[in-house]
Amino acid sequence: MIRASLVIIGDEILSGRTEDKNLAYLAQWLGKLGIHLSEVRVVLDDESDIIEAVNSLRKRYDYVFTTGGIGPTHDDITTDSIAKAFGVKTKIDDKALIKMKEYLAGKELTKPFLKMLYIPEGGELIYSPATKAPGYKIENVFVMAGIPSIMQGMLEGMYDYLEKGEVVHSRSFDIFVGESFFAEKLTKIQGRFTGLDIGSYPFSRDGKYGATIVIRSADENKLDVCEKEIQSLIKEY
Amino acid sequence: MIRASLVIIGDEILSGRTEDKNLAYLAQWLGKLGIHLSEVRVVLDDESDIIEAVNSLRKRYDYVFTTGGIGPTHDDITTDSIAKAFGVKTKIDDKALIKMKEYLAGKELTKPFLKMLYIPEGGELIYSPATKAPGYKIENVFVMAGIPSIMQGMLEGMYDYLEKGEVVHSRSFDIFVGESFFAEKLTKIQGRFTGLDIGSYPFSRDGKYGATIVIRSADENKLDVCEKEIQSLIKEY
Repeated sequence: MIRASLVIIGDEILSGRTEDKNLAYLAQWLGKLGIHLSEVRVVLDDESDIIEAVNSLRKRYDYVFTTGGIGPTHDDITTDSIAKAFGVKTKIDDKALIKMKEYLAGKELTKPFLKMLYIPEGGELIYSPATKAPGYKIENVFVMAGIPSIMQGMLEGMYDYLEKGEVVHSRSFDIFVGESFFAEKLTKIQGRFTGLDIGSYPFSRDGKYGATIVIRSADENKLDVCEKEIQSLIKEY
Repeated sequence: MIRASLVIIGDEILSGRTEDKNLAYLAQWLGKLGIHLSEVRVVLDDESDIIEAVNSLRKRYDYVFTTGGIGPTHDDITTDSIAKAFGVKTKIDDKALIKMKEYLAGKELTKPFLKMLYIPEGGELIYSPATKAPGYKIENVFVMAGIPSIMQGMLEGMYDYLEKGEVVHSRSFDIFVGESFFAEKLTKIQGRFTGLDIGSYPFSRDGKYGATIVIRSADENKLDVCEKEIQSLIKEY
């Protein structure tokens, strides 16, 4: 199984000012490639926190993605932190410098613009047809912007660098009764399957409790059999 | 500074099926008490992942909150995992048993209902006027449901158990020009303040780039002075 993790970098997420939109997008995008998002950490714009998260996750998972903190302002410290996590310096990417000069078309290349051209030594810029701004990778760590539209463009560029796995299919069914009433029966259904996971996710809508039952497997035939059992469970209520 | 962390437990978040709503709510709720949410981890419904996250964070932060996985179905493994993280067994809470029998009013107390009455030994149920369902705490770990409306009720019950800190105030200002153009000036403003943090959070609206500049401090006078500098920076563009 190919497993990935995500480090969301940004004080603004942890203060509750901004709601992250990248987790769900990345999870679904990776899911279609058969890559399982298996852990996410949200950390402050703090060098030691970023280093610890990246170093801990890059050993444990096949891929680490990061979002946020690669802009031009003083609080954008992701690239410097990732360089330190790998024990390398940062360097100006020559290809990026040429593209930036084209973009500026004679206007001054100020410090903030220059700052965004630095990436860790050993890293590689990843251009995408979907956006002008490139993300970059260093070993198994993929670095992206925090703004969702830019992040999504950068992610497209990373497609070719990722090994694809077996795609897990899922089907979901809503049941309008509290989980306590069907939990035992659901446990028995789960007991009859291997290589198929059943999850139950409770919700409250208009003051009434229910749950979404999700079945997941790489094997569509197993899903067919399980779906019939879930459908007949739902009919009981 | 009083610092907290959050463990979001649930396959459904990591698959991208469900967008978490609890992080931002908890961050803002804690912020009003002067408690800083400083790290969040999202983990699978996996015993060893939950144990590792909880044990790592409860040493590092004053408080750990968890959401999700305390329901009655087979995939709800949070309480067992937290008990193992503390090296204790689970027990039925007698007070909760009485309340549950009242709630069921003669109906059978089935296994799934019984499952929800177990908490780790040494733990304490926390009732809230806002909801019938209690959360619980064990040492500095506060355990809550994943459904936002229930989580929010449980959180109210935890208010009295938390030490309050110095409240950080924030003010935010939108600037409709790319960060690269004002980054140097913003760095200079930040250089003139201690005990006040300036963040810049870029956005893209209708294809135009801009940023929200956020200034944060416990000292309202410093915020007043800084606000004037930010306002005059914005007027330049």
